[in-house]
Formats: sequence, structure tokens, C-alpha cells
Amino acid sequence: MQRGLLRFAVLALPYLFAIAGAARYPSYGTLQTTQTDGVLNVVINNTYSTINLFDKHVQSDLANLIEELQAPDTDVRVVVFSSANEEFFIGHIDVKYFLPGYESPLPLFDPFIPQMLFPVSLLWNITQLPQATIAMIEGRTRGIGNEFIMSCDMRFASEAPSVLFNQFEASFGVNPGAGGGMYLAHTIGRARAFEYALSAQDVDARTAARIGWINTAFDTSAALHQHVQALAARIAVFEPMGIAATKTGINAVSRPTFDVLVRDAQNVISGLLGMPSVQAFFEKFIEATHNQSISPLELNYGRDLGELFK
Amino acid sequence: MQRGLLRFAVLALPYLFAIAGAARYPSYGTLQTTQTDGVLNVVINNTYSTINLFDKHVQSDLANLIEELQAPDTDVRVVVFSSANEEFFIGHIDVKYFLPGYESPLPLFDPFIPQMLFPVSLLWNITQLPQATIAMIEGRTRGIGNEFIMSCDMRFASEAPSVLFNQFEASFGVNPGAGGGMYLAHTIGRARAFEYALSAQDVDARTAARIGWINTAFDTSAALHQHVQALAARIAVFEPMGIAATKTGINAVSRPTFDVLVRDAQNVISGLLGMPSVQAFFEKFIEATHNQSISPLELNYGRDLGELFK
Amino acid sequence: MQRGLLRFAVLALPYLFAIAGAARYPSYGTLQTTQTDGVLNVVINNTYSTINLFDKHVQSDLANLIEELQAPDTDVRVVVFSSANEEFFIGHIDVKYFLPGYESPLPLFDPFIPQMLFPVSLLWNITQLPQATIAMIEGRTRGIGNEFIMSCDMRFASEAPSVLFNQFEASFGVNPGAGGGMYLAHTIGRARAFEYALSAQDVDARTAARIGWINTAFDTSAALHQHVQALAARIAVFEPMGIAATKTGINAVSRPTFDVLVRDAQNVISGLLGMPSVQAFFEKFIEATHNQSISPLELNYGRDLGELFK
Repeated sequence: MQRGLLRFAVLALPYLFAIAGAARYPSYGTLQTTQTDGVLNVVINNTYSTINLFDKHVQSDLANLIEELQAPDTDVRVVVFSSANEEFFIGHIDVKYFLPGYESPLPLFDPFIPQMLFPVSLLWNITQLPQATIAMIEGRTRGIGNEFIMSCDMRFASEAPSVLFNQFEASFGVNPGAGGGMYLAHTIGRARAFEYALSAQDVDARTAARIGWINTAFDTSAALHQHVQALAARIAVFEPMGIAATKTGINAVSRPTFDVLVRDAQNVISGLLGMPSVQAFFEKFIEATHNQSISPLELNYGRDLGELFK
Repeated sequence: MQRGLLRFAVLALPYLFAIAGAARYPSYGTLQTTQTDGVLNVVINNTYSTINLFDKHVQSDLANLIEELQAPDTDVRVVVFSSANEEFFIGHIDVKYFLPGYESPLPLFDPFIPQMLFPVSLLWNITQLPQATIAMIEGRTRGIGNEFIMSCDMRFASEAPSVLFNQFEASFGVNPGAGGGMYLAHTIGRARAFEYALSAQDVDARTAARIGWINTAFDTSAALHQHVQALAARIAVFEPMGIAATKTGINAVSRPTFDVLVRDAQNVISGLLGMPSVQAFFEKFIEATHNQSISPLELNYGRDLGELFK
Repeated sequence: MQRGLLRFAVLALPYLFAIAGAARYPSYGTLQTTQTDGVLNVVINNTYSTINLFDKHVQSDLANLIEELQAPDTDVRVVVFSSANEEFFIGHIDVKYFLPGYESPLPLFDPFIPQMLFPVSLLWNITQLPQATIAMIEGRTRGIGNEFIMSCDMRFASEAPSVLFNQFEASFGVNPGAGGGMYLAHTIGRARAFEYALSAQDVDARTAARIGWINTAFDTSAALHQHVQALAARIAVFEPMGIAATKTGINAVSRPTFDVLVRDAQNVISGLLGMPSVQAFFEKFIEATHNQSISPLELNYGRDLGELFK
């Protein structure tokens, strides 16, 4: 078999599965979808966690969703992510993922992007979607949860006190391994990216809107929903190729390249995760957060992280 | 003849013409220039159009102007663009350009930058000028009109209701082919570039200033003119090499590279313009805008574009 | 000796010196340091100058400081720069550096980064430090003084009238040769980088905070100090590798690459400094500033520079 044909066969594999209607990875029902015309609303609802943890369940469902959105015959033009959890739009990664003995139905690396760890490829693939993607945010986003929203094209939030953004990896002795610091630099500028990614502060919606972390903050949940749904409906009448082509240009200059993302974010964190001090911090974090459940520290990490360093 | 000499001869060609005083392309008088010391004021006044259309007349005159500004013996240090049309600082491209049967005295590609379509090279060349370039904006800019102002170094505008910015190509099923989305990403950040380039919204001057699309918005036309003329006069006393050298550094990190611009903006739109759905949209647009003349839809495209999708 | 070993030996040289405790370059006492836990406070106090000139004394001391901060056994995690001079946080470069007959104990090029001129490598090395770096600004920064603060990760300032930022090289007929325009573009966006780097305006703290030149401006000196020391102390409890790794990602996408910095900033200014008009301007500047001492023109360069062009 010729190399070219082989490559085609491998690339065609996901579509063959998709055609067959079978999800590639296990389904856990953590992403509830409804479609209205060209807009797909996706509600993040991780029933396995009280903090909408970005764990293997969410990752598995997200991988399946992305595959559907990549399908050539999709009629989705805009994707809106929201949350069923009032306190957490989307949580940080399940840090047990980095500890010995963790089991998962998911591969370590994405079989179709073999240089990328599975969760990193999920976020990269979101930036690659032909659809416009909008995060409609109520509740906290921290760590990879914040990297998730940064991988969406746009972010809108309510000014509820539960809305707090935090790219907090530096406080764990590591870095945002899916490129969170890089996307922040392209979105809020170099200086503020350093400030917030180095200090692990919680940023409220109003501050986030002022510095550009989110596009706009709204007084009320109703105003947020109305704005986002109107925006989504507006974009969804445009031809899909116009949306995808416009994204291509913006991505070409304001997204870390694949190589930079792998080398200077993912591979950097890979080199640090096994360090004894980092592993010990994860253990301490799990205990202090009551096993990563809703708890004072999860609710107020930015304010209370000092207790982890006593 | 040696390769080096041949290359010199080709490069020297435009200057030979310039020395002879003959404009390379036909002159239509759509750009009225007056010079005060080192400041060249250029008034965009396309008398062939009621909406200051970026058509073959403006393009031809602009090409000639750029060639003059590139001449080694120019004493122009700052260029200020303004408009004679109250409603349109500069219009979108003449979409007939993309339809069969269009005739033009201009070449399809720039003979001196053969990878670039003629209008794309015009804007690229503006970013390359050794002069500081300022757009002093009253009236609308849409599509390539907005890409034109993004190719200038700076943008200042009045807060008149006629001032509306719109990078509207996604609504046509294409992308900003001269890099408008890319320049927006470098100017207003990745998130807001997505928001506005994907939604084809009209942005007013105050909002534009707040997010950085323009440098500053002024209450009155008089305040705008006073500020811009003072700024231009200030810069124009500096040595030309200081201006050009300072631009080199900023361009090196905040402009799409030539290759990225050609590949991810121009060539992407080139692949889409011939699609039947896009061609049909252009026909519909021409009819709905009363042949791209001053009309409700041209005046309020951002508000009224829905009528094109009924 | 094998090439690999030789390279190791050369790289090891600075550490051998460091181990021996001897500073590589002469010490002048212009940088006064005190350390509290992981925070090193560095007060810039050039007693050889009334305007905290970035001269050979400061450069020599800075080179030694950087070498200490690069040492593998350092326990410094955050560096805070402040100033002992009320009017000048840090001055511009000693322009005599570019005139014939200048003598210095420092090499022209950094022996460890031989493509870089010595002062350029100082600032590049600051961006490379594993520590978080914060400029706590009271007083003016101009020219390479502003490039110095742009090379720090973060900038905070008081709103005192003495706080004025100015990337003023264009007014000298040259460009910011250590990349000031590039860092500005990554920090305040392309448009405002052009505006301020081309016009040599003094920018006050409030404006600087609004456009992102500095992270935040504070009403009082006390509020500034309190905020910066709290921020520094917060970051200083994090593991050093988390700080350094997070910086790696942000630098990878928001800093000029080494090659771009050398080619489009440093080498551009190198080509201009010897021009007779530039040399004459330096002479005029030295005279008008009373030999680069505290003087009306040094205090109000942005306002009064016109007198240099009469």
C-alpha cells in the first residue's frame, strides 16, 4: 500500500465511525446538547463531580462532541457552551490524572494527533472547529477550565460573584500546559498575562471584561443569555465557509502554533508533573479541597491558596 | 547578464517611470492631495460613487500615490487620509470585481509583488511605507475599507453617528482577504477580533476607541482635526529614517508576515469567491444596495443585513 | 578536546566565577539590593547621574546582578525594581556611548551572546530570568529606560506627575534598538505602539494604565508599594519551576524572537547611529540637557522636544 493511501485510510477512520453513528469514546452524558437552527447549545453538567471537574467523563464526552462537529455533514455553525453548575462553569483538571494508579478509558495521547496529550488535543481541536464557538459563562473557571474558555473564540459572562477566572497552574509549581498563558497573552496582552498567570489570582467578571479576558460582562444572567443567543443566531445565518475562513486568518496570527504549543506549554508541564514537590502538592490539594469537591478552597482558591503553603 | 544585475534592473523599473513623471496607472482624481511641510493630506473623494467605493478608480489612484511615497526623493514624512464623503470614509470593494465580465485597467496581480492580488498589495504596500500613516476618520469603513484603515499605522475618528466600522466579509460567506481579521487581532486582541469579524456588526467610534480598534475618538470634527494635524506635524519634524526604522520593529512583531497574509487571508478568499453561493450573494447585495449606492442597506449594513438572508 | 566539552567549558565559565564570588564586571553600587524571603528588592540609584542615567555604571552593576539571578543556587523567586531618584525611575542611555572617544570597562558585545550589543543583551537577559520581575515605578522612564521596564514581566506605577513614559527614539532619528517598540506592540497593541513610539510623547501613569502600558496605576506611593510587595510575596511562595515554566509559555508567543530582535531592532539602530545627522542630534541633545543632567528638557522632553528642531 502506498504511503499516501495509507495516510488517507488513517485520516478517514474517524469519519467511518461517525458514519456508523457510534461514539468513539464512552458516553457519560456530561454534555447536554440542543440545537436550534445552526446553533448548538452545549450545557456542561458533570454529574460525577460537584465542581464540574474537567475529568475523564467530560473529556470523553467532549472528544465525541468535537468529532461530531468536525463531520463534513454537520449543519452546526455556532456552538454555545454554558453550565448547569451555578458555582463552576467548568472546573480544573482532575489532578488524580497525574498521580500513580489513575485509570481512564481514554488514551494518553490523541491517536490522531500523536504529539498531543489527550486533554491538550481537545482544546486545540476546539480552536480548529469550523464553527464559531462561544463560552457563556456563569460560575468559576480555573486551570484547564480557563484554558477551555480561552480555546473558544469568544467569552461572555455575567457579573455574578460566582464568576471567577484563574489560570492558577503556577501556584502548583507547573505551567498552563494547554497554552492558557499563551492565549491570555494574545487576548489581554503580555503584561497582564504575566500578572495573572504568575499570581494565581481570581479575576471577577467586571475586571475580566475591562482587560479583555472576556468580551463583555453583563449585569444579569438574563442579559447575558439574551446577548449571546442573539449573537449566535446572527452568526448562524452566515455561510459556514465564511465563518471557518474568517477564523483561519485570526488563528494564523493570534494562536500559538502547533509546535510552540507542544514545545513551550505541553512538554514543559510534562517535564514538571513527575517532580516530587509537584506530586506532593497535588496530594495536599486533594486533601484540602475535600477530594476536589465543593469546599471553601475550591470556592475561593484565589483568596485562600495561602493555606496550601503553610 | 548576471542574475544580480537583472534583479536590480527589474527593481529599478518603477523608479525609472517615476523619474519620468508619468503615473503608472490611469489617474481619476479620486485622491486629492495637499502638502504642508512634511505632511501630505490625502482626501478620498471617489466621484464615481456615492459611497466612496474602493473601486478601480480609487485603486488606480492609490497605486500611483503609493509609488510617489516610495520614491527615494520624497520629502513626505507623514500621510493623513481623510474623506470628502460625509457618510463614507471609504467604502467596501466594488463587488462587481468578483463577477464575470468585470473590466479594469488594472492588472489582476501586482506586477512587482506577483503573489499578491492588486488590491491586497495596495494595502500591504501602505504598511511598508517609510512614512507614518494616519487615518482621520469621519464616515463608515466596511470590508476592504476597514482593511484600508487597519493598514495605516494609526486611526483617529470623530464620534459622529456616521462613523461605523465593520469587517463584514463573514456575512458574505468569505473572509477579509487583505488581512483585516489579522490586523484586528494584533490591534484589539484575539477575542474581540473573532467577535466583530464573525458577526459583521457595525462598531461606533466610542466603542472602537474603548477596545483599541481606533486610537482615540473625539467629540467633534474640529477636535479630531486639531489632534491629528498636531500629531502629524509633531512626527514630521523627525528624521525620516527614525520614522521608518521605528515602524520596522513594530511591523516585525505585529503584522502578518507576507507568507501568512497571502496563504491564510488572500488565498483563502480566492478559493471562496467563485463559489455559486458567494456569487449569488454578491448579485443579491448589488440589488439590495441599489447598485452599491447610498441606500438604507449601505448606510446601516450592520443593523439591516438580515434582509439579505430572508 | 571535543566540541561538546569545549562548549560546556565555555558555558560553565560564568558559574565558575560566581562560585568564586567575584563579580565579572566592575561594581559601582548603583543597584542596592535587599532580600526578604524569596523577594529581592533592587533600588536603582545611579549616584554618577542626576537623572538615573542608564550608563556604564548601571549597566555594569546590572550585568553582575543578572548573573547572580541566573545562578542555579539562587533562592530569589521575584525581583522588584524601584528607584531612589524621585524624578527618574531610570534614565535613557548615556548618548555619549554612541559618540567617538567613549570609554567603558564593558565589552561592546556580550561575550556570552555575541550577536548582541551589551546593553541589548542586558534587557534580553531580564526577559529570560527564571524569576518573576516587577518594575515598581515612580519617576520617568525614557528610551532604553522604558525598554528596561518593558523587559520586566510587569509594571506598576504611582500617579505622581513625575511618572512619565516615553519611547522616544524616533525623535532622535533612530529606533528603539533593544526592542521597545516590539514589546509595546505585544503589550498595548499595534496601533498605540505606533502612536507613541512614532510621536515621542510623554505618557502619564493613568493613561498608561488605561491602555495597558503599565498593569495598574495607584493614587499614592503607599498604595503602589503595598500592592507590589503583596503581589511579590504572593508569587514568592510558589515553586521556582512553576514561575519559570509559566514565563516560558508567555514569552514564546509575546516576545520578539531572538533573531527578530537582533535583526529588526538592534541591527537597524546600529546602521543609523553613525549617520552624521544622528551624531549631530546627540551633540545638540547633550548641550540642551546640560550634559544629560536634571534640566527642563530632561524633565519635560515630551513637551519641550520642539526646541531641538529649531
